[in-house]
Amino acid sequence: MIARRRSLQVKVGRITLGGDAPVRVQSMTNTNPHDVAATVEQVRRLEEAGCEMVRLAVPDEGAVRALRDIRKEVDVPIVADIHFDHRLALGALEAGADKLRINPGNIGGRDKVEAVARAAKERGVPIRVGVNSGSIRRDFLKKYGPTPEAMVESALEEVRILEEVGFQDIVVSLKASDVPRTVRAYELIADRVPYPLHIGITEAGTVRSGSVRSAVGLGILLWEGIGDTVRVSLSGDPVEEVRVAYEILKSLDLRRRGAKVVACPTCGRAEIDVASLAERVERALEGLERPLTVAVMGCVVNGPGEAKEADVGVAGGRRGGVVFREGKVVRRVEEGEIFDALMEEIGKIWEGGR
Amino acid sequence: MIARRRSLQVKVGRITLGGDAPVRVQSMTNTNPHDVAATVEQVRRLEEAGCEMVRLAVPDEGAVRALRDIRKEVDVPIVADIHFDHRLALGALEAGADKLRINPGNIGGRDKVEAVARAAKERGVPIRVGVNSGSIRRDFLKKYGPTPEAMVESALEEVRILEEVGFQDIVVSLKASDVPRTVRAYELIADRVPYPLHIGITEAGTVRSGSVRSAVGLGILLWEGIGDTVRVSLSGDPVEEVRVAYEILKSLDLRRRGAKVVACPTCGRAEIDVASLAERVERALEGLERPLTVAVMGCVVNGPGEAKEADVGVAGGRRGGVVFREGKVVRRVEEGEIFDALMEEIGKIWEGGR
Repeated sequence: MIARRRSLQVKVGRITLGGDAPVRVQSMTNTNPHDVAATVEQVRRLEEAGCEMVRLAVPDEGAVRALRDIRKEVDVPIVADIHFDHRLALGALEAGADKLRINPGNIGGRDKVEAVARAAKERGVPIRVGVNSGSIRRDFLKKYGPTPEAMVESALEEVRILEEVGFQDIVVSLKASDVPRTVRAYELIADRVPYPLHIGITEAGTVRSGSVRSAVGLGILLWEGIGDTVRVSLSGDPVEEVRVAYEILKSLDLRRRGAKVVACPTCGRAEIDVASLAERVERALEGLERPLTVAVMGCVVNGPGEAKEADVGVAGGRRGGVVFREGKVVRRVEEGEIFDALMEEIGKIWEGGR
Repeated sequence: MIARRRSLQVKVGRITLGGDAPVRVQSMTNTNPHDVAATVEQVRRLEEAGCEMVRLAVPDEGAVRALRDIRKEVDVPIVADIHFDHRLALGALEAGADKLRINPGNIGGRDKVEAVARAAKERGVPIRVGVNSGSIRRDFLKKYGPTPEAMVESALEEVRILEEVGFQDIVVSLKASDVPRTVRAYELIADRVPYPLHIGITEAGTVRSGSVRSAVGLGILLWEGIGDTVRVSLSGDPVEEVRVAYEILKSLDLRRRGAKVVACPTCGRAEIDVASLAERVERALEGLERPLTVAVMGCVVNGPGEAKEADVGVAGGRRGGVVFREGKVVRRVEEGEIFDALMEEIGKIWEGGR
């Protein structure tokens, strides 16, 4: 149902971003950037969770050296996150970064911008420029206040600097820690540049509250067709960011990956412990990559009806449950056997190659 | 920034719903509807969490009797959820329900609809009619398939039945278990009826995934100005539904309640354990009713800058942290003292009556 804004496309290592590419999921490591082993381990966990680009902070030369070693150990495209120092950008490119995140406006003049742009172009590496509500250029901040307009003008200035040196493999981001400003800023810039947009709510918060805020903000933008890659920012394990990103994208049918567990909200009618069962099923299917919809319903009244479109499901009955596949009852089981019966049916779907 | 659709207003007990009333938060008990003590306890917990209307399933006469007793014990407006049997609706009204959720299309004819509508009108009690994707009328399902159009036509039919007997204190809902259909259905009906809309994603799932799906769906609708009351459906403790509902509304500046913890996503630059600290702060402030924004930032680079708009915050430094209020540094503390220092500053804000 969503008509996506059609942007230019860039390549980030082995994947495409923007244009007709699927909305890409990315995250950022939070390990010590000098600790190669810990970072490689986290990058691998992210990749397993479905992360398609991993960003690493590159604050100094030591991190450039680490990046070179990390690059040899992992396949997933790597984004180097750099501030202020163009030598780190050049180093990161040489170390094998597949994308840079750097603002040319603060690396110290046209020479340096040209050097970075030339090196990136030679390697076919795109650059993300981006403005956070906290890093709006002083003149725009003065002119507009901390508004979406100021964020957009700041970002357009960064874009202009790259365009002036003939660089166009650009990705743009505009993040505020609040949803309304972030959404407005992206709505404004969506019509003003042809580049792919990286969307996210910055400093979203803890896993508990941040995932809700990110879902609201990214959900609105994606529904409007805006966004070519998403980063969910959470204070916690970045693997959670990837999980939440896919939940958001799956909820809008923009990506399919793994299990979607549909469960009823256990009203007074529920005859089985829906919440525990749904959680158990969700966890059991956590590693799953292929798409599958599972319904866990408390009662037979709404059960099969509401979940007609699930691949497999269960509805609680007075003393057990009814297992169904594609809305049709396939067996009746005791309450204690529901989980196993459900997993057995799922196993059959696998075997059937469906 | 959101221009809300302006609906008619109804009264639900002591509160207003629709029109210029704030978007109301509601939930539903999942206790045994005959168990008065357990239900009263849950209703009270919901009310404490900020729930403004509590729905109870009323599947039989025993539940009507329980409702009467529950009504005496709690103040919060009560919504009676009834299917098929108009006598239960009449009983619930007499027992003191402040709102009914019932579909007149399936209670057995015009006489019964008139009886319920008359009794509701006498008491000034509104009626919510609603269609779930699983309960679309057969003729519309045949004509349209399980589409948003079928949901809308089904709901309009329920509305028409009430309007025909002169009843207009109506609230409408249209829920599917998937976001795109739900959003489209509400977008379609928003222009076709003047009534308040109850919005929700039905069978959203577990707390983990359901809160993300609800946030996406309700976030989109609320951003479009649609929605006068929200229900987040989760398989779990309904108190979580209320918490998530407020997170959604707060993220769009539609309601203010309690603490909003803004935390950075702990990149390689973080110098304190942001995730644990943010979670600790969030939990410590969980019961809070008055609005407060707290920033927990990993490093001094972006810390105070990014969180300028927070009431109070902390940014990690090399060996401790910097506490600030409204963007200004007020003290420096050791890492082990950050939490206490932050809570102390929050205490001062209280005392200052701000």
